Amino acid sequence: MSGPAGFPPAARAIQKGDRRALARTITAVENGDPAAVPVVRALYPATGRIPMVGLTGPLGVGKSSLLNALVGLLRGQGKTVGAIAVDPSSPFSGGSVLGDRIRLERRADDDGVFFRSMASRGEAGGVAASTREVARLLEAAGFDVVFVETVGSGQADVAIREIATTSVVVLVPHLGDEVQTLKAGLFEIADVFDVNKSDLPGAELAARDLTELANMGTTRDNWNSRVVRTSTTTPSGIPELWEAITAHERFLDETGARVAGERRRLAAEIAGRLRDRVGRDVTDRLERDTELRRLLDQVVGRKVDPWSAADRLYRDWYRAR
Amino acid sequence: MSGPAGFPPAARAIQKGDRRALARTITAVENGDPAAVPVVRALYPATGRIPMVGLTGPLGVGKSSLLNALVGLLRGQGKTVGAIAVDPSSPFSGGSVLGDRIRLERRADDDGVFFRSMASRGEAGGVAASTREVARLLEAAGFDVVFVETVGSGQADVAIREIATTSVVVLVPHLGDEVQTLKAGLFEIADVFDVNKSDLPGAELAARDLTELANMGTTRDNWNSRVVRTSTTTPSGIPELWEAITAHERFLDETGARVAGERRRLAAEIAGRLRDRVGRDVTDRLERDTELRRLLDQVVGRKVDPWSAADRLYRDWYRAR
Repeated sequence: MSGPAGFPPAARAIQKGDRRALARTITAVENGDPAAVPVVRALYPATGRIPMVGLTGPLGVGKSSLLNALVGLLRGQGKTVGAIAVDPSSPFSGGSVLGDRIRLERRADDDGVFFRSMASRGEAGGVAASTREVARLLEAAGFDVVFVETVGSGQADVAIREIATTSVVVLVPHLGDEVQTLKAGLFEIADVFDVNKSDLPGAELAARDLTELANMGTTRDNWNSRVVRTSTTTPSGIPELWEAITAHERFLDETGARVAGERRRLAAEIAGRLRDRVGRDVTDRLERDTELRRLLDQVVGRKVDPWSAADRLYRDWYRAR
Repeated sequence: MSGPAGFPPAARAIQKGDRRALARTITAVENGDPAAVPVVRALYPATGRIPMVGLTGPLGVGKSSLLNALVGLLRGQGKTVGAIAVDPSSPFSGGSVLGDRIRLERRADDDGVFFRSMASRGEAGGVAASTREVARLLEAAGFDVVFVETVGSGQADVAIREIATTSVVVLVPHLGDEVQTLKAGLFEIADVFDVNKSDLPGAELAARDLTELANMGTTRDNWNSRVVRTSTTTPSGIPELWEAITAHERFLDETGARVAGERRRLAAEIAGRLRDRVGRDVTDRLERDTELRRLLDQVVGRKVDPWSAADRLYRDWYRAR
């Protein structure tokens, strides 16, 4: 890491609370602008300490309203909050497919909240990486808690797994009957289940079913997932939801699971960065290097299959020393 | 590649037209079952010759009905057709988010059509790879044309780019006004634009706008994208759509662009396979190798950032010889 002399001014500005510098750097991250990299890297030592709370669940369960309510609660306690909403977007509209989605209430006069929406267009995996960097920027900017809200989908789940210290899965009562059909994998990533819209009929049953299911096992850290009920219209259950989240955060600290999780996430990040680098490198060589061009010719000519070609490249060129 | 002695029985069965063997192998591919690999590999020499037509576009433009109509046309010409529909799916429902989507009419009594729906759950990039293998299986099974239909989204676009020889983007008239906001990237991947539901008002205008936009440049192969209009209710324009597709396929053969495209796609596939292998390898080593564990400790302890760690791994361990 560079010394103080090399510390980018934007990084310093972000740490001093300059919201415009923060917003500009986030935009640079989102656009894949290489100018963002030294800023995020310089701020890396200031990260890895706060709760990063993932909120995921199907469309229409009210995640955005819930996030609003949580932000209200935390602001009332004097905590500052950063929030990232990852939207599935269509390359056709250039925008979000969730046009009618309830947006986080802008609190323009409140410097203690920072909300950013990120579109998940572009390369698979790219959103997860960008979201992680933005979450780091928010932590470095001094927010006490960061939320990452996504619609449950393959790509978004990856984003959550690579970032969140506590994962909340939000459901609604009428999903209660179908709870048994939920994929087991989902349960493993949920530290807290929230039955939102719990003023609707069936909420109690849904919560009971979820509790039963949650009791059938633990998360990979041996945490027993909590089940809570909330309503943002009544409103009710918001403090209980936050208490379930902080209970999990305390568990992480008390058991050493926080460091273990951080290790897992960082190992995945490093492997991803190395993988991408090797991928770019070999793509370039397949075009320029005579020997590799010949190998590619053989694959195009159906003399060698792509599996064998990759094996050969690995064995002769890219296997670890 | 293995000689005739090692040729898997399932591969032979698929080439002989055994549809149950085909369906079983596709399921194995979809489940990531390693037993599928030798079968797909053995059939690789029998691939790379037929039109692989990608159909993409926003939800609700009638891609499935269009696919039905194209299948009808081609069956009338005596051509056999394989079709893959890639569905965005939710891990919450375990199924498709397009519950009301019009499915390809089952033609149970027609051995000349084979339809398969694939859910895009799971790892980012996984769908693209599976879809490519399934498309290869369909070609090896003897189908004259293979269609891959997806909803335009980040992940699905990757699937199309890695498979299709001709990409069709389907739109509808009321999107005409918004055509200027379409991302430039989309135009680069479309060989044919189809204004579907062209019995609706505004179809002519939409087609004119698209033509204007298409005339502003060419695809990467120097092809001038064609614009056609179709309606599946009237029906009209289906033969013209197919003619536009085959015109592009002839262009690929006449200019050498087919081989160039195949080369690009195969280079990307090989790079992807190598990248994944290196990624698995380094993930494993970060857990087991003493030196790499120490490096990861330093990253967790914020002494080294993940970028530097990946650089060091690349430089000292994984850089090509």
